[in-house]
Amino acid sequence: MKMISILTVTFASVAFGQGMWMPQQVPQLAEPLKERGLELDPQQFADLTGFPMGAVVSTGGCSAALVSPLGLIATNHHCVYGYLQFNSTPERDLIRNGFLAADRTGEIQASPDSRIYVTTGIEEVTDRITGRIGPRLNDLERAKLIEKRRKEMIAQCEKPRGLRCRVDSFFAGTQYLKTTQMEIRDVRLAYAPGAGIGNYGGETDNWMWPRHTGDFGFLRAYVGPDGQPADHSPDNVPYQPKHWLRIATGDLDPGDLVIVAGYPGVTFRYETAEETRMKIGYLFPTSIAYRKELIGILESESARGREVAIRNASRIRSLANYLKKYQGTLDAFEKGRLADVRADEERRMRSLVSNDGELLLKHEAVMNELQAIFDAEKETLQRDTAFSWLYTASPMLSQADFAYEMSRQRAKRDADRDERYQERNWPRLRGLIARTQRQIEPGTDRAGLAHFLRKAAVLPPDQRIEAVDAALAATGESEVEAQIDSLLERIYSGTRIADQAWREDRFDDSTREITALGDPLIELAAALRPLKDANERREKEWKGAFSRLRPEYMNALRAVRGGLLAPDANGTLRVTFGEVVGYAPRDGVMYTPFTTAGGILEKNTGEGEFDAPARALELVRDRRFGPYQDPDLGGLPVNFLTTVDITNGNSGSATLNGRGELAGLAFDGNYEAMGSDYVFDEKLQRAIHVDSRYMLWVMDAVDGADHLLREMGIEPQIP
Amino acid sequence: MKMISILTVTFASVAFGQGMWMPQQVPQLAEPLKERGLELDPQQFADLTGFPMGAVVSTGGCSAALVSPLGLIATNHHCVYGYLQFNSTPERDLIRNGFLAADRTGEIQASPDSRIYVTTGIEEVTDRITGRIGPRLNDLERAKLIEKRRKEMIAQCEKPRGLRCRVDSFFAGTQYLKTTQMEIRDVRLAYAPGAGIGNYGGETDNWMWPRHTGDFGFLRAYVGPDGQPADHSPDNVPYQPKHWLRIATGDLDPGDLVIVAGYPGVTFRYETAEETRMKIGYLFPTSIAYRKELIGILESESARGREVAIRNASRIRSLANYLKKYQGTLDAFEKGRLADVRADEERRMRSLVSNDGELLLKHEAVMNELQAIFDAEKETLQRDTAFSWLYTASPMLSQADFAYEMSRQRAKRDADRDERYQERNWPRLRGLIARTQRQIEPGTDRAGLAHFLRKAAVLPPDQRIEAVDAALAATGESEVEAQIDSLLERIYSGTRIADQAWREDRFDDSTREITALGDPLIELAAALRPLKDANERREKEWKGAFSRLRPEYMNALRAVRGGLLAPDANGTLRVTFGEVVGYAPRDGVMYTPFTTAGGILEKNTGEGEFDAPARALELVRDRRFGPYQDPDLGGLPVNFLTTVDITNGNSGSATLNGRGELAGLAFDGNYEAMGSDYVFDEKLQRAIHVDSRYMLWVMDAVDGADHLLREMGIEPQIP
Repeated sequence: MKMISILTVTFASVAFGQGMWMPQQVPQLAEPLKERGLELDPQQFADLTGFPMGAVVSTGGCSAALVSPLGLIATNHHCVYGYLQFNSTPERDLIRNGFLAADRTGEIQASPDSRIYVTTGIEEVTDRITGRIGPRLNDLERAKLIEKRRKEMIAQCEKPRGLRCRVDSFFAGTQYLKTTQMEIRDVRLAYAPGAGIGNYGGETDNWMWPRHTGDFGFLRAYVGPDGQPADHSPDNVPYQPKHWLRIATGDLDPGDLVIVAGYPGVTFRYETAEETRMKIGYLFPTSIAYRKELIGILESESARGREVAIRNASRIRSLANYLKKYQGTLDAFEKGRLADVRADEERRMRSLVSNDGELLLKHEAVMNELQAIFDAEKETLQRDTAFSWLYTASPMLSQADFAYEMSRQRAKRDADRDERYQERNWPRLRGLIARTQRQIEPGTDRAGLAHFLRKAAVLPPDQRIEAVDAALAATGESEVEAQIDSLLERIYSGTRIADQAWREDRFDDSTREITALGDPLIELAAALRPLKDANERREKEWKGAFSRLRPEYMNALRAVRGGLLAPDANGTLRVTFGEVVGYAPRDGVMYTPFTTAGGILEKNTGEGEFDAPARALELVRDRRFGPYQDPDLGGLPVNFLTTVDITNGNSGSATLNGRGELAGLAFDGNYEAMGSDYVFDEKLQRAIHVDSRYMLWVMDAVDGADHLLREMGIEPQIP
Repeated sequence: MKMISILTVTFASVAFGQGMWMPQQVPQLAEPLKERGLELDPQQFADLTGFPMGAVVSTGGCSAALVSPLGLIATNHHCVYGYLQFNSTPERDLIRNGFLAADRTGEIQASPDSRIYVTTGIEEVTDRITGRIGPRLNDLERAKLIEKRRKEMIAQCEKPRGLRCRVDSFFAGTQYLKTTQMEIRDVRLAYAPGAGIGNYGGETDNWMWPRHTGDFGFLRAYVGPDGQPADHSPDNVPYQPKHWLRIATGDLDPGDLVIVAGYPGVTFRYETAEETRMKIGYLFPTSIAYRKELIGILESESARGREVAIRNASRIRSLANYLKKYQGTLDAFEKGRLADVRADEERRMRSLVSNDGELLLKHEAVMNELQAIFDAEKETLQRDTAFSWLYTASPMLSQADFAYEMSRQRAKRDADRDERYQERNWPRLRGLIARTQRQIEPGTDRAGLAHFLRKAAVLPPDQRIEAVDAALAATGESEVEAQIDSLLERIYSGTRIADQAWREDRFDDSTREITALGDPLIELAAALRPLKDANERREKEWKGAFSRLRPEYMNALRAVRGGLLAPDANGTLRVTFGEVVGYAPRDGVMYTPFTTAGGILEKNTGEGEFDAPARALELVRDRRFGPYQDPDLGGLPVNFLTTVDITNGNSGSATLNGRGELAGLAFDGNYEAMGSDYVFDEKLQRAIHVDSRYMLWVMDAVDGADHLLREMGIEPQIP
């Protein structure tokens, strides 16, 4: 039984890797890391401007890594997908065919709002954010004060040109850190393989193993001639980083240590039992059901024609992706009895203080206050869920609300504006108007909005959306269906929200100007605003309370869980460690840690999601893998599995071997680990990576990206 | 990459096991068998009355093994399924609940026609069957002569009471062997687990891995007080064999040698390329399509009510089982390019003789004659396929045909009767009338027959079924649909074929008597008989030609394939060798060689096909596996995979370890190897076995079959 016992040993020893560690925590993991084969000094990870952390960057939504002295950046294909889409025309389909600039002069701007962020500093600022808050402030005032301090600190930090700063809460508000990033504004596409490599397997293989996706692409960061971030310009020059990653030489084997550095988005591992119960009992099942319904509407509308189908496709893909994620998460919750696990932890918290009357009273007070907030949330949960789905179902309503709210926020001082509407975000907001345009399809929009207005119409009496009731009543019709039809007929025949240029013009309007236009969809959005405002105010109040309560809860949880803990992901730079290893998804089945190019031949149908380029298929058939072949596998490695702890936002993260060389890029998690944002399952949670050797082989043998290979120090070898 | 390389080594070395060897061939395999760990003397396998072959028996359709000195016999659950069904009543559902006799007196007759066959001798008789045949005989005469010799030899052999004999062709008629078997006629049910163990996974898991089926059950052979086979009687005593198998003590591990001895039914590994092409091009696709259509009809009829559904259930299951098998076989053919492989072999045959003019001419003559037969077959292939499906679709038509044909055959001397109708088979034929009754449902029967009459009505002009045309025309209707409706209305309102007692009375009727009854379905069967007779005559003629041609083809093929070859399966006793090993069904996935009881918890839904007994689930949850736990697996082994070469008929075969102990029972093949009746794929073909340790655990811990365990020398250990 050798194969099984190898596996068991491996599983037992991965727990050290659990956690998306803050760089400054890594030195505390020195001992196990050395034992597991780390050849770098663990201290190095705490130095954000040194090697290797200085080479780890962010695109804003994805992680990425500098891989040459001339600002070449490797990330996932799905992270450059939007840029390929942006630069595609009917004559030049970059998504289908990929893109390869013949040389640097051929590199094209990724998109006007594409960015590269290079983290240059992290500073502890807890006391400046939550210190010296008077006990007489109520929770709303408390939340506003914290927000004010954050905004001031960010404004101060961003004074030097070309910087982007953020202040984030760690461990549920126990700690605040300020991150300073260089914001590179001229980002260009250097190379991406075609969809038959980069998106091989498509939705079918999404979250799945075995996987054969060449999910990689290359950007290049450009700066002004002075080396400072600058707007896109032909005068700009490649960014010359102090550090970049070298491509791994030599083999990657099962059991090898790997390190992933990147920007994980959000996890919920320190939530209360009640929050978990709410998700299991209402939020996830409802979200799953509503997603299915909306997908059904979009698909049925798409039958109207090719043009409609194209506009709805990316919405359907996004809804389906999260549908799969929520369903998988719910399955994992139920399988792992997560609610019971959390409830048990809370029992243990309580028993830890049960011998000390004062502590017990304090603990009970915290738990009772938290419970009171959740109870209040539940009182209007149906209404608030249906309410938020009006906007999800109707991108046009969202845009109307944005135009209206922008005008209101514009009237304020920038420091007083909601963070989202502050001037520093305006380029992104303007970009969003353009990007949303691709999804706007008035017929579909109306069908979606109608569906959720129907839901609003049957809400219980104590959870009505008054503005909806009023708008429906005002139609003069008596039946709900006729009311909805009449209301939407008036709105969609009158609104100009579907017009991108018109919407762009609204960006600078005052509220008076925008109201004077009398656009019926903006009027609906304005009528819905009081509830939106009230909900936002209530949430701010709860946030203030959480800023008092959650650190207490967190400390109690820390006592129960013990050991060194990594904070929940929050979009900041993290490092996670793990090893290359397969897993047993169920009794009798083992997933091997590597897939090979032979699997592409097995899967390839020659159409749709499984349509690899003819050249690639031919080379695989002839086994022309050159130096990229793995000596042990006897084939070309394509994707591999590891135990590193990642989540959304880690896409494109550099996967380093023990010597700090680039062994691949992380791009997905496996289906069995969808509960991992809530709880880490060491037996089943795996990250999926594309192997550097596959990247190089595709560049060398399939796409002939010779100049990029040479730039990374690799001499092309397959003629 | 240890796991992969272990696998590769293993795959490379299994080829020695390929083949369902005749017992007398085994001594020729002595060297590799010794190398692979056989502790028995290979010579032993040639001694049919010694150990272990003396313990290997047949139930007529399945293989089985003697496992105690008192005639206790282990076989598959699905091999005793019919007996459980036969003994079930609405009050006592043996299929659902299983059966356990408290002691020997509680054992019940399996069924009136249940048999156990013990092979006592195999004798080479080739010359007596095919020697001295004059060259002037035409092919029909030749076939008749061979048939006459076979029947005489069998009649002679069966003269001593209690014997059953058969004369079979090996290597496509190159060799004939006579097998003598003791026929035990009093067979009783000793024990079978409930469906939640014995049929766990049902249709869903059929042919699949990973598997968790406790596919075992126990019979007991009884003989007269004189030790000779006797009809069922309370005076009978347990059969006391000279040899029986001991239950394996100790571990079974990956890589271990296993031996399977049993009665494989039929394989087609020496077919011509043209026969393969006909199967790929017409026979299998048509069979798949027709099966789907008939299943659709049966399912839709079943919606009429529970009673109908019960009567149709076993037909649906059987159709679906072979549907899956044909589809899988066709997939395997296409994947393995079987037609190309066979065509290539025929090219090599030709090139082997291409330098010798005389041999070449002879070879061409053989190939041309074979081709001429296949061409003739193709001329009426559509008609003959539709014709045969009339009987498949209508069990009542089959029964009518049987009653009519029985009366015609009865008029002949027994020696002149078709083998199927000879007196020695009458008990089985009478039993068949009763067994078929469970499937007879006139409404469904009519719907099925109507469907295939419609097909007959649209056959091409040169392939009409005249009797069908005449019957339809005689209705006087002008439209086909009305004709079919009128014909079937008359038949089904008038026939008494659905009446079992009435059918049993017909068994002794003369043709005049049966014709005088004027049963409309028997009239249709009689009208169809001329075509059936003509087809049978034509097939006999081809058989005569094949008896000349196929040995020539076989010898040419032998020259091309080289080495020691095992003959195609033909229902006679065979031995196959292999080892315990998993396989890689596709890139990135490995099936481990063992499943464990933990997998039952994973699969169990508590209903339908995945509904293990509560007691079993509880014991698995508590990991109460006692001495049956595998030390390496750390769990209770349930099923395992090996490379042994088996097919239908091997079900229930004893799986021996290298010491000749019973390590399990073979019960299925895997989906990927469905082409194995045609070609053996050493990488993908696996047999699926139930592990003895699981059998013992179920008997000990779940069902409390303590007295049977003790009889096999096992002391129960789980309270």
